[in-house]
Amino acid sequence: MAFAAAASDKTTTASVFTEKEMQTAAWIRDAARSDNLSYKILESLTTEVGPRMAGSPGDARAVAWAEAKFRELGFDKVWKEPVSFPSWKRGHEKAEIVAPFPQPLLITALGNSVATPAEGLTADLVEFASLKELSLAPADKVRGKIVFINHKMQSSNDYGLVVPGRSAGASEAARKGAVAIVIRSVGTDSHRFPHTGVMRYEDGVAQIPAAAMSNSDADMVARMIKRGKPVSLKLDIGAAATGSYTSYNVIGEITGSELPNEYVLIGGHLDSWDLGTGAIDDGAGCAISMAAAEFIKRNGIKPKRSIRVVLFANEEQGLFGGKAYLAAHQAQIPQIQAAAEADLGQGPVTKMSSFVRTEALPLVKQMHTVLAPLGIEPGDNNAFPGPDMGDLRVAGAASFGLSLKADDYFDLHHTPDDTFDKIEPARINQAAATYAVFAWMAAQAPLHFGSGPELAKTMKK
Amino acid sequence: MAFAAAASDKTTTASVFTEKEMQTAAWIRDAARSDNLSYKILESLTTEVGPRMAGSPGDARAVAWAEAKFRELGFDKVWKEPVSFPSWKRGHEKAEIVAPFPQPLLITALGNSVATPAEGLTADLVEFASLKELSLAPADKVRGKIVFINHKMQSSNDYGLVVPGRSAGASEAARKGAVAIVIRSVGTDSHRFPHTGVMRYEDGVAQIPAAAMSNSDADMVARMIKRGKPVSLKLDIGAAATGSYTSYNVIGEITGSELPNEYVLIGGHLDSWDLGTGAIDDGAGCAISMAAAEFIKRNGIKPKRSIRVVLFANEEQGLFGGKAYLAAHQAQIPQIQAAAEADLGQGPVTKMSSFVRTEALPLVKQMHTVLAPLGIEPGDNNAFPGPDMGDLRVAGAASFGLSLKADDYFDLHHTPDDTFDKIEPARINQAAATYAVFAWMAAQAPLHFGSGPELAKTMKK
Ligand SMILES: [Zn+2]
Ligand SMILES: [Zn+2]
Ligand SMILES: [Zn+2]
Ligand SMILES: [Zn+2]
Repeated sequence: MAFAAAASDKTTTASVFTEKEMQTAAWIRDAARSDNLSYKILESLTTEVGPRMAGSPGDARAVAWAEAKFRELGFDKVWKEPVSFPSWKRGHEKAEIVAPFPQPLLITALGNSVATPAEGLTADLVEFASLKELSLAPADKVRGKIVFINHKMQSSNDYGLVVPGRSAGASEAARKGAVAIVIRSVGTDSHRFPHTGVMRYEDGVAQIPAAAMSNSDADMVARMIKRGKPVSLKLDIGAAATGSYTSYNVIGEITGSELPNEYVLIGGHLDSWDLGTGAIDDGAGCAISMAAAEFIKRNGIKPKRSIRVVLFANEEQGLFGGKAYLAAHQAQIPQIQAAAEADLGQGPVTKMSSFVRTEALPLVKQMHTVLAPLGIEPGDNNAFPGPDMGDLRVAGAASFGLSLKADDYFDLHHTPDDTFDKIEPARINQAAATYAVFAWMAAQAPLHFGSGPELAKTMKK
Repeated sequence: MAFAAAASDKTTTASVFTEKEMQTAAWIRDAARSDNLSYKILESLTTEVGPRMAGSPGDARAVAWAEAKFRELGFDKVWKEPVSFPSWKRGHEKAEIVAPFPQPLLITALGNSVATPAEGLTADLVEFASLKELSLAPADKVRGKIVFINHKMQSSNDYGLVVPGRSAGASEAARKGAVAIVIRSVGTDSHRFPHTGVMRYEDGVAQIPAAAMSNSDADMVARMIKRGKPVSLKLDIGAAATGSYTSYNVIGEITGSELPNEYVLIGGHLDSWDLGTGAIDDGAGCAISMAAAEFIKRNGIKPKRSIRVVLFANEEQGLFGGKAYLAAHQAQIPQIQAAAEADLGQGPVTKMSSFVRTEALPLVKQMHTVLAPLGIEPGDNNAFPGPDMGDLRVAGAASFGLSLKADDYFDLHHTPDDTFDKIEPARINQAAATYAVFAWMAAQAPLHFGSGPELAKTMKK
């Protein structure tokens, strides 16, 4: 704290960007916007690595790819930091309605689910509109049944509302004696793709298999149930916990010219689910942040502070990479000039919010004037920097929220359909341009943005 | 021939629809358009039967459903006619790129494909832009390889252009020594669904496994191949021929009041592929034609001629139901007043063409004036009545082409994603209203439309 704040505070007398800096920022914006680097990086990751679930063979391949790509892109420093976590493996997965109208269903196990018995598991379904409705139900309605949570996500804003059914539904159902749980996928598409995602078993509660069915299948099962006869489902899932695994946060840095130990932190998470190739979740975030930093470097634009790109390990199964980063860098929070992750798809960025000390707000306003021509609105000063950086903010890191347009994100994420063909160059280029402008201006800023315990106190929920 | 033409020819003196008939037709159009019966029938078929691949357990369930539904809808006569064919069963199916960038692929076996050896089959890919390009290639480029036909369907108009790669690609590849074939799916979507569909082995040519990959996977494999290193694919397919099977064309009839032995023939095919629930291919066609006839009956509108709805067996694997219908009714072609199948999705109908004798063209024009307010354009007098009725036309059956808008049809058809949630009531209602108006006016017409050998001679290719 003492170190960083002292270094920056020398510059508080001239706390605006110079005209030259504003011109450079605008040049970066316009040049980066028509540069396909983020698109090409994402093409490389999805083609040469593909699925990279934490703890899978693809995880190690992704780490090797990231180190090599940072080097190929000419980052000044490239290193990795270990991240350990329990690992989980998907097995076979099959489901079918056995009565009254036999039909196969398309389902997928939720991350961390246990397996069914080897011969499968068959029981009648009991439907609930939400986790809350399940929690209010009497146990004798649930005992011996397979719980079906039929909670439809109407738009991308519903994720927080619907996702508790996925993460906590199994233990809630098991407490009432259910033998398994299947949920309507947490996703906004109307395709036959089940969405996976992590779930958790509460300690001391029986562990029952947990799976998601596609929205199309959920519609169909609901239509069957409406007919009033018992609907019997057979589940056959072979998932298993597989011990522990050590992966890595992979980090590339463009070293600052004047304040190299202060840095702007951007990034995404390198892991994906296993079903797709993680183009939108979160290859896009990795590509956007790698391209943003490389673009500045390539054009010889030297920022005062460093720009550090972190590709986090295992976000999907519990933010392990973000937690490891905080643990390793806890003492250096004040060195973080500003943090902003990208983990909501391919862009464009639609809003910029900040979480900085009051003195820095005029600078944020100047940054916004450069970004406004990209269609970016100004936000408040209580920004959330993204899942892997959320705890850094709690610890006092100045943060920016560069909000990505999530119109297609929850159609694709955690499904086999999360693939590179969905990416539009114009969208991802705009996002990379935004992150480049943000990273450079924050790195160049004539004022420390305030990371430290004092800033942490100003945080609103 | 003598019988039917003679019966109708009595009426040639007044060969226009009366004002009252025109009013009734308009009433049918407007009332049927806001009636959800076709939507409800399709909901029932997809929910209570689901997948119904020819020769599968779903085939028999679909036949039972169709008989029961015709009776429930109050058709005057309901019967079934046997249709025999060789049957085929899908088994497990898996594919993965094993080098240089290991990744699983989403593939599905093509109908009739043989299995790979039990341990799978691994070889390098050789890519061709089309079946034609494969046919021009030297054998030593192909020998020992897995052929990849990467022929992209750009729009629904391309089906005829692209589908030969699916049906004839395997034998063409095998003749040059290929060990298997995988094609880019014949479909217009950009989702991770492989499209199945029937293929044929030529006599005397080695039978090699044949599969399709999704458009997303084909894009990815093409990107790998572009990198210039050999791309090795492992295929593991368990499909098999399973002997022969007898299914049924299921037929429901509304009996005519004056000329009961002449009939208007409408219908769709009852079988689907196994991957989805055949909502759009061709549950929609079955529902549209059942609803159209029932609507007339229900409202006490008595047509002079009969209206016969045929739900054809096994269209998908070789038009077996259509051929069986022709074989059973060859001698009665002149009794067919007009034939029109629905097998291109949920509607709306966008054009009406005819294939009738010249004397009937003024009546066709009157029919079109009733349909024009539904947005339906007039077509030529060389109509194709649909796949299962194509041979009836060749045999001289007067035919109508009620062209369904196929904008989403080739996105969904032959994939797991062909499910009821894709159906929009307004679209299918318009189609059912069109078929109702067509069926009633053709049944009521004061003139025989000319089915017979003379009409057959006027057919243009
Ligand atoms: Zn993510
Ligand atoms: Zn995710
Ligand atoms: Zn069809
Ligand atoms: Zn078809």
